[in-house]
Amino acid sequence: MDTIEIRKPDDFHLHLRRSELLRKVLPHTVNQFARGLIMPNTRPGPIITNEHVDNYRNEICSVLTKDQLAEFSPLMTIQITQETTPEIINKAEQARAIAAKIYPQGVTTNSENGVVDFRGLYPVFETMQELDMVLSLHGESPQEMVPGLEKEKTFLHTLRMIARDFPKLRIVLEHITTEDAVKCVLELPETVAATITVHHLFLTLDDVIGYSKDSKGLMQSHNFCKPIAKTVYDRAALRKVATSGNPKFFFGSDSAPHLKGSKECASVCAGVFTAPVALPLLCQMFEYLGHLEDRLEPFVSEFGAKFYRLPLNSERICCVKKEWIVPQEYDGIVPFMAGQKIYWQVET
Amino acid sequence: MDTIEIRKPDDFHLHLRRSELLRKVLPHTVNQFARGLIMPNTRPGPIITNEHVDNYRNEICSVLTKDQLAEFSPLMTIQITQETTPEIINKAEQARAIAAKIYPQGVTTNSENGVVDFRGLYPVFETMQELDMVLSLHGESPQEMVPGLEKEKTFLHTLRMIARDFPKLRIVLEHITTEDAVKCVLELPETVAATITVHHLFLTLDDVIGYSKDSKGLMQSHNFCKPIAKTVYDRAALRKVATSGNPKFFFGSDSAPHLKGSKECASVCAGVFTAPVALPLLCQMFEYLGHLEDRLEPFVSEFGAKFYRLPLNSERICCVKKEWIVPQEYDGIVPFMAGQKIYWQVET
Repeated sequence: MDTIEIRKPDDFHLHLRRSELLRKVLPHTVNQFARGLIMPNTRPGPIITNEHVDNYRNEICSVLTKDQLAEFSPLMTIQITQETTPEIINKAEQARAIAAKIYPQGVTTNSENGVVDFRGLYPVFETMQELDMVLSLHGESPQEMVPGLEKEKTFLHTLRMIARDFPKLRIVLEHITTEDAVKCVLELPETVAATITVHHLFLTLDDVIGYSKDSKGLMQSHNFCKPIAKTVYDRAALRKVATSGNPKFFFGSDSAPHLKGSKECASVCAGVFTAPVALPLLCQMFEYLGHLEDRLEPFVSEFGAKFYRLPLNSERICCVKKEWIVPQEYDGIVPFMAGQKIYWQVET
Repeated sequence: MDTIEIRKPDDFHLHLRRSELLRKVLPHTVNQFARGLIMPNTRPGPIITNEHVDNYRNEICSVLTKDQLAEFSPLMTIQITQETTPEIINKAEQARAIAAKIYPQGVTTNSENGVVDFRGLYPVFETMQELDMVLSLHGESPQEMVPGLEKEKTFLHTLRMIARDFPKLRIVLEHITTEDAVKCVLELPETVAATITVHHLFLTLDDVIGYSKDSKGLMQSHNFCKPIAKTVYDRAALRKVATSGNPKFFFGSDSAPHLKGSKECASVCAGVFTAPVALPLLCQMFEYLGHLEDRLEPFVSEFGAKFYRLPLNSERICCVKKEWIVPQEYDGIVPFMAGQKIYWQVET
């Protein structure tokens, strides 16, 4: 099959940044996705009040042309900090934030103000459950004693606890990277779902720390993200469940642009800029796994919308099997697989 | 205790590079060490014939002043490739190479010409055993299927095989990073020893991939080396055995300088430049572990020389407990712990 036409997809985990960077990266998403769930850990920021939500939405929309505004909708989120109150959540919901995001403290970019005490947030979760607002979790333990590679697995205890104590609260475990997370989400009730990125379908830890064949012994700064990619077994579990047709697993790119200088340096920011290549690489991976025709569309265009109780997009998009070389950079930002050949592209 | 005077130490694993870089890094070692075992994977290079050994020794000596030549001796090595013959080894021994080093293919910097078939080198090992030349091993499996974090453990099968088949061949497993390697070397006969670096006494994987507290979520390019640092348990095993007084474990820095541009980039070279801070940090670590007075000197100044059957150095060196901040760089090369406070220094 050399072309595939699907319902226009949604990206349920997207970092758009602000100001100059926002202007640079937004067009890449608009070209492929009808909606994006916009992450709140911005600088300036974070997005922690209803006013922030309004201002950030306005900033995003101001960057879009009239035509783009008709094609793309930002879905807003608010960040939950240890100081977030039920009142703040109420107001954020009125400002049409559809999800509230928790970053455990210290685990990723801009997470200094993250959460340590999840039980302390139970009044907030109670309110979210009443309002039917989605809880979005960066699933890594904030405990210093837990090694990086174990942080997702360890966090699953917290996920199970929240799911048990708030049985009607819809929860998304974001950008899962482990077989443990897959199993846990499969076991938990229908209120619990997970997003899977495109880069975690491609990478393992060895592609970051310079032990894969392609990396030629060199650590790959642009493959570094949080949660860090894990083993081949973990990746296999993600590939399997992403193409399984289970509606609890859907696409969220976690496209996380950083200017080149923040990636090619002594202290490298976490994040992979996948927006320019997301849908083409999903086509490539689903084709490789033998599920391009039957499972790509639900994964990328249906399951997420259904979980978030949003209408399915009516527009359609066509991808064609046609090789291209990913540019070395887009306006100062190095994309995932820069300089490498990929096999699908979005028909424009 | 605020000062310690010890026999001048040796560095039994040292990358000095060539030309300009050699001139930049050599003085840092000469200030602290009486001898260095010079690694052969240079560019230009590698050092794979007796002529190479002679030329490289001459180049190193040409950089030293007359006074420095009286204080420091380079101990030369030759690199074993899949094409190395017993005759090459014989000639290298005549050129006073005291060890021959194997890099398994593809595991680290400049290891494209590394070894895959160890059994194919048995005639070479036979000759080395007859000549009483030391076999120096970068202990990571060259098999692509083995994940990076398992490569040292997997390589131990090869080590056991060579030690079994050449019972008189002296073997050094270089820069060990795992509890498995510690246990294996402890179990094997007296012919098998191991070097331990200073950075592996300090780092864990989380200090590389941005999950330690100090790394603030950012991947640390300058902490990236091969073999990559492992878990806290592995580090504890290294700390324990390094301070145990067991003569099978001695110091080799694996100081591996790269110009800043090769570390702060998209594809990061493996290697930590520890030469400027090696002895001060060893003092600091041995003090922290309660073994500064009784175990530092044998680890850094005696066990290696005895294993290599070299006379002990007669000169002495004094270190003082005095804080300093490690410079951000030395002439374009960023040292280990750049910008951080350390607590000991070499008295000049």
